[in-house]
Amino acid sequence: MRKTPTEKTQHVNPDAVERSPPCRVALIGFGTVGRPVAKILCERTDRLLHLTHIYNRNVARKKQSWIPGDVIWTEDFDAILKSDVNIVIELIGGLVPAEEFVRSALQAGKSVVTANKQLIARHGPDLLQLASANGCQLEFGASVAGGVPVLPALRTGLSGDRLHGIAGILNGTCNYILSRLESDRIPFSEALEEAQARGYAEADASEDLDGGDARAKLSILALAALHASVSPADIRSRTIRTIDAVDFDYAAELGCTIRQISRAKLKEKTLFAEVGPSLVPAASPFGRVQRNLNLVLTSGDYGGDMAFLGAGAGGDPTAVAVVSDLMFVAESLSAGPRSRPPMQLASPKVSCDFETPWYLRFWVKDQPGIIASLAAILSAHQLNIDAVLQKPGFDKNALPFVITLEPCRDSQLHPALEQMSTQAFALRPCLSLPILR
Amino acid sequence: MRKTPTEKTQHVNPDAVERSPPCRVALIGFGTVGRPVAKILCERTDRLLHLTHIYNRNVARKKQSWIPGDVIWTEDFDAILKSDVNIVIELIGGLVPAEEFVRSALQAGKSVVTANKQLIARHGPDLLQLASANGCQLEFGASVAGGVPVLPALRTGLSGDRLHGIAGILNGTCNYILSRLESDRIPFSEALEEAQARGYAEADASEDLDGGDARAKLSILALAALHASVSPADIRSRTIRTIDAVDFDYAAELGCTIRQISRAKLKEKTLFAEVGPSLVPAASPFGRVQRNLNLVLTSGDYGGDMAFLGAGAGGDPTAVAVVSDLMFVAESLSAGPRSRPPMQLASPKVSCDFETPWYLRFWVKDQPGIIASLAAILSAHQLNIDAVLQKPGFDKNALPFVITLEPCRDSQLHPALEQMSTQAFALRPCLSLPILR
Repeated sequence: MRKTPTEKTQHVNPDAVERSPPCRVALIGFGTVGRPVAKILCERTDRLLHLTHIYNRNVARKKQSWIPGDVIWTEDFDAILKSDVNIVIELIGGLVPAEEFVRSALQAGKSVVTANKQLIARHGPDLLQLASANGCQLEFGASVAGGVPVLPALRTGLSGDRLHGIAGILNGTCNYILSRLESDRIPFSEALEEAQARGYAEADASEDLDGGDARAKLSILALAALHASVSPADIRSRTIRTIDAVDFDYAAELGCTIRQISRAKLKEKTLFAEVGPSLVPAASPFGRVQRNLNLVLTSGDYGGDMAFLGAGAGGDPTAVAVVSDLMFVAESLSAGPRSRPPMQLASPKVSCDFETPWYLRFWVKDQPGIIASLAAILSAHQLNIDAVLQKPGFDKNALPFVITLEPCRDSQLHPALEQMSTQAFALRPCLSLPILR
Repeated sequence: MRKTPTEKTQHVNPDAVERSPPCRVALIGFGTVGRPVAKILCERTDRLLHLTHIYNRNVARKKQSWIPGDVIWTEDFDAILKSDVNIVIELIGGLVPAEEFVRSALQAGKSVVTANKQLIARHGPDLLQLASANGCQLEFGASVAGGVPVLPALRTGLSGDRLHGIAGILNGTCNYILSRLESDRIPFSEALEEAQARGYAEADASEDLDGGDARAKLSILALAALHASVSPADIRSRTIRTIDAVDFDYAAELGCTIRQISRAKLKEKTLFAEVGPSLVPAASPFGRVQRNLNLVLTSGDYGGDMAFLGAGAGGDPTAVAVVSDLMFVAESLSAGPRSRPPMQLASPKVSCDFETPWYLRFWVKDQPGIIASLAAILSAHQLNIDAVLQKPGFDKNALPFVITLEPCRDSQLHPALEQMSTQAFALRPCLSLPILR
């Protein structure tokens, strides 16, 4: 190996290593996460981080007596840009004005720590490049799974592996609702109202229930774990609104339960990815996640499978993720600007055409010959039935029953589903859920 | 806030940021972990790490054709010390000569990555200080829980929290044996032989069964998570050899199972720590860990509880942990020597005097008045009985039965245990296990 002139061996005079001053930190957004971030920063005694500015709209009504007197409260982001702040913490969420704030901070050479899922899901690759081009850092460990340190673990604990798959329960609202259906077989609408009453779901819960939130998080995990740049809009999401309490009865017959699973798998040059309700074994890690917890599983070529479980949301756990990122950036900055190699990203084709066994739930007006008709349609599409389940005790005018299929691709199943849904006895479109083993 | 002359804002000309050459890496020990580490290094395409030396005793018989021709195979560690290697990977294990190798590497300003549990458990604080004094780094992410990225997550993902507790299933051999007793109620000796036949336990399994391995790992976790310097010898460990299949029957009556749990908790200036078989709820994360997996739970003031699950041993997962550490060190070195603040360590008093409910299992020759005698002894020591369990069907000449106690300290229980074991009807000393809820 040739030695280039820039190479140095690490013989260091320890006295020559200078102790850096604390990093100056501006906090943008003093809300659910911003407040505990400020609290942790003010309570720390290690002097690595120094909170200098707090930005918020109508900042006067936000002021708190426990914030030290030398912290500047401001409504003027430009003042922060022009200041000697090293790190900007963006916690206002959404795209406007967060995107502009983050871009201008990076362009001014200030590192950024953000918990903004939508911003990173849509513009992560671009912003990472902007950070790299300006010799600063962008960290977003709090943008997925709140306090569960998945992204930091990917960054430093699994960086030695070559990951090919990632799957998770990433939306606490869906998990709360589904585990309530599971435990008490209450109607979907009642579980949703309960989640709203407890503050786990918003008045308009579409973003949670229909998978928008989870697919944004999945695209961030695909970026961090699989180095794949994928837009959330390219990831199919299926709603959990179609799940009925009876599906938990049938799932239980199969040794399973139902969870909203977000999963991505790199295979050759294709990223298989989707978000939606899925059958998982009741005894599996996914099946056991209760309430609003988050679980993420990673699969690596060398290290095999790893699981991370914890509180996926909440101000305090998310604040821990933000401050941990801050410390990581501060440690890097203490060494001055450096040539952190930019992440090599691929832009694979995105497909939802997973090959899995399937759970099909029909809701029919009972009459002779239904199974025969459905079996004929499935057979015509080369789909193999694994089991037919019909629990007793239902009204014959609105009868739920289940067929499970041997593994086939989503694209093979789809035409059969369309044909089955046009049958006169079908009261609702057939519900199809992948069965993950 | 005053601005000191050393402060710079982060306006960086990206062209001025120079791309560093790859780090030169020497691998010490080409065995179970060393081989897959070399494999991963040779398969990587990012050119951040360059394997230059492989050290082993009798190196000639180790040579592999898949190692590039420019790698130097050597039996001379001094040659590596004198070379321009930046990072030394120590994978020979044990204390001699590993300790001397690691010290001399650090003194020569070379950073060290090690998987050596005994070395870090005994000399970690000292070696960290040596690394800091020489402007280089020491990482040991592979020394606990193999491929489970607990230590990296503590370093970068939970650094923003203030942790007060850590608990884990850290020894795969014990977990394999206990989960075999649980699933098939086979005798302890049979489960041990099976573990040995499968390569999960060594011929002399004392280090695993009696807790020596787990307490070394617990002392490393206490160092990394709780910033407490504690010698493994100061942590009490109880053997799992006293556990009988019948204990799983009684544990099940209490909704529990039995696992070897390592736990440490900082309370005021005391570190409560111990390793040993414990009752845990069957439905808890600990209760569900099967086979030779590892699970670590952390508890933080801000972020609450977090769980990490994965393969705790094995060459490939451990190699991922080693290479991940290597990349972390290489990224740091690419910035040149720097003032990483040394970890502020405390040396708390160590105590095993946890306050918990207890499971007491007696093995007696049945005769009238046993319960009355035991109850009298317990009462005399101010200990409150919670339940008395006696399953039918046992030989009256060797009858196992169980008393559970309401929470009390280990030190309160101990004198009562001694007194009870001297009773004429006691065939064996009473087994006492903490019940963790």
